[in-house]
Amino acid sequence: MAKLVKIGMAGYGTVGKALVQVLKAKKKAIAEKYGLEFTLVTIFEYDGMLHAPKGLAIDAVAAAPNIRSLPEWQAGKMAGDEIEKQQFDIFVDMTPTNIKTAEPAITHFKRALLSGKHVVTSNKGPLMLFFDEVMSLAKKQGKQVMYEATVGSAIPVIHEAQSGLNGNPIIRIEAILNGTSNYILTRMATEMMDFEVALKEAQERGYAEADPTLDIGGHDAAGKLVILANTAMGLKKTINDVKTEGIEHITLDAIAMAEKEGFVIKHLGIADEHGNLEVRPKLVPKNSPMGAAITGSLNAYKFVTELAKDIIISGRGAGGMEAAAAVLSDMINVSK
Amino acid sequence: MAKLVKIGMAGYGTVGKALVQVLKAKKKAIAEKYGLEFTLVTIFEYDGMLHAPKGLAIDAVAAAPNIRSLPEWQAGKMAGDEIEKQQFDIFVDMTPTNIKTAEPAITHFKRALLSGKHVVTSNKGPLMLFFDEVMSLAKKQGKQVMYEATVGSAIPVIHEAQSGLNGNPIIRIEAILNGTSNYILTRMATEMMDFEVALKEAQERGYAEADPTLDIGGHDAAGKLVILANTAMGLKKTINDVKTEGIEHITLDAIAMAEKEGFVIKHLGIADEHGNLEVRPKLVPKNSPMGAAITGSLNAYKFVTELAKDIIISGRGAGGMEAAAAVLSDMINVSK
Repeated sequence: MAKLVKIGMAGYGTVGKALVQVLKAKKKAIAEKYGLEFTLVTIFEYDGMLHAPKGLAIDAVAAAPNIRSLPEWQAGKMAGDEIEKQQFDIFVDMTPTNIKTAEPAITHFKRALLSGKHVVTSNKGPLMLFFDEVMSLAKKQGKQVMYEATVGSAIPVIHEAQSGLNGNPIIRIEAILNGTSNYILTRMATEMMDFEVALKEAQERGYAEADPTLDIGGHDAAGKLVILANTAMGLKKTINDVKTEGIEHITLDAIAMAEKEGFVIKHLGIADEHGNLEVRPKLVPKNSPMGAAITGSLNAYKFVTELAKDIIISGRGAGGMEAAAAVLSDMINVSK
Repeated sequence: MAKLVKIGMAGYGTVGKALVQVLKAKKKAIAEKYGLEFTLVTIFEYDGMLHAPKGLAIDAVAAAPNIRSLPEWQAGKMAGDEIEKQQFDIFVDMTPTNIKTAEPAITHFKRALLSGKHVVTSNKGPLMLFFDEVMSLAKKQGKQVMYEATVGSAIPVIHEAQSGLNGNPIIRIEAILNGTSNYILTRMATEMMDFEVALKEAQERGYAEADPTLDIGGHDAAGKLVILANTAMGLKKTINDVKTEGIEHITLDAIAMAEKEGFVIKHLGIADEHGNLEVRPKLVPKNSPMGAAITGSLNAYKFVTELAKDIIISGRGAGGMEAAAAVLSDMINVSK
């Protein structure tokens, strides 16, 4: 018999919807392979919740064009009031990142932990601002906070930093953490496009937001770097500790000069041997694992380790299905 | 207080010696970070054993030019007779791979499991020939067999395949599994050396054995592919199921022609969607994560996943310290 694990999730956007589709499609496979049955009891949205204490019918939720039209919808019931009252095992946060205050997610995390729930999140706000506080509370409560999706999406960098390199300390990190800025730099280099043209193209193709500041300014990368470096190197940093420089001022001349010398310009997040964090454009040897092969919107992470030198992992760092895959992996690991 | 974990190890060559050095150097760090104290009770060698039921003094072992001169040495006492009688928690096998019969390691594995010990191994013989049998026995005994070091050394590919991609099935693997053949192909391509010249250079620099057949013929890669594919895709293959082709016949002409079209030739291990396994030279786009950036003796592993497309991990796939790091990581995971 599969072990029943009750889920309360917040946020029904791209990632939340992808997770519901995956839970529906993989129900049988998850039961067979991991002996787990995930039962969704609540979806919290900004204007109410979909809730059934014994579990929502996943097929009906997955098929609904708008969950507000389902009979279990309760307008005006909010996560902040409900999380502590409700019975479920894992609180899964897939709401958008609030880079300034991490609200309301940080409050939800605390209420979930204080009422005996694990937390799985794709929202990086609470961890880029309150990593130590959240982890300390989780430890005190004997619960877990899992966050694979916050950095590199389904690329298992957090899992690797937590347990894949046991006993082999990570002493430095270099990473291409933001797909938008990597896309722009790649297009500039391969097509000799100006920054503005490449940005416009990225926006038209859906790789960049209408306001691209967080991506091209390095702030999104800085938040991810904080979470990864805190995990891998035992630091207690926040995004305010990261020296951050964007790619707005990179010219075609700079790219051409780099190319001539065998380099590409990449927007790197670096955690150095002394625990200093920075995000900035940097020359990388073209023909190296962090170089020209990391094209378009890919992400790449280099861990410099004490016993085995460089270990590099790369893949797609964004996308609803990718983030849902990371969330599911955490849900399985936390339930085992 | 740290949890005491007793270790019996077999094989005191490059990897075994590196592990003893690491256990000595990291004793305090392992206790602090993981709450574990590894106590080495036995080192089995081909002609006897070094043994102290309450634990060998790691400093004395690490400092000894030859363990046979230490007072705890007992000539003629063999692992096959001793494993079941002795009290320890983890049997760590670091003996050389026997590609034909997997002996004596396979017998040692069974005796360890049957007498209630976990197994951690850097020796891939037993798993490339008897994967299913070993895993079934471990399951029956309620013990674990851990083998990160057998594939890609400290690159955490086994860990990733086992738990990093939970719920996101790996549907295809492409991998550069053998550093020697990759070194030779890299030198041929970058220096326009003939195969024979590059092989001779690899031998002089210690990247290739005097008899290089296992590496350049693809048999070493085939063994690793079996272990990885069985782990990642739930197969029950042995090395005899792998269609294997070496790189001996690759000419400079072929490499030059590939180069002209934007490709490099890599010696790839492939596990396809139908569970077919093969090792052979293959064209790979030069400017891709499995392409020209994987230089020299590096390894690289591409997992094609159902939910998040390609995830690629690369690093140094060989070396005594690298293998010891992987063994230590497994020892920690199995003890937690």
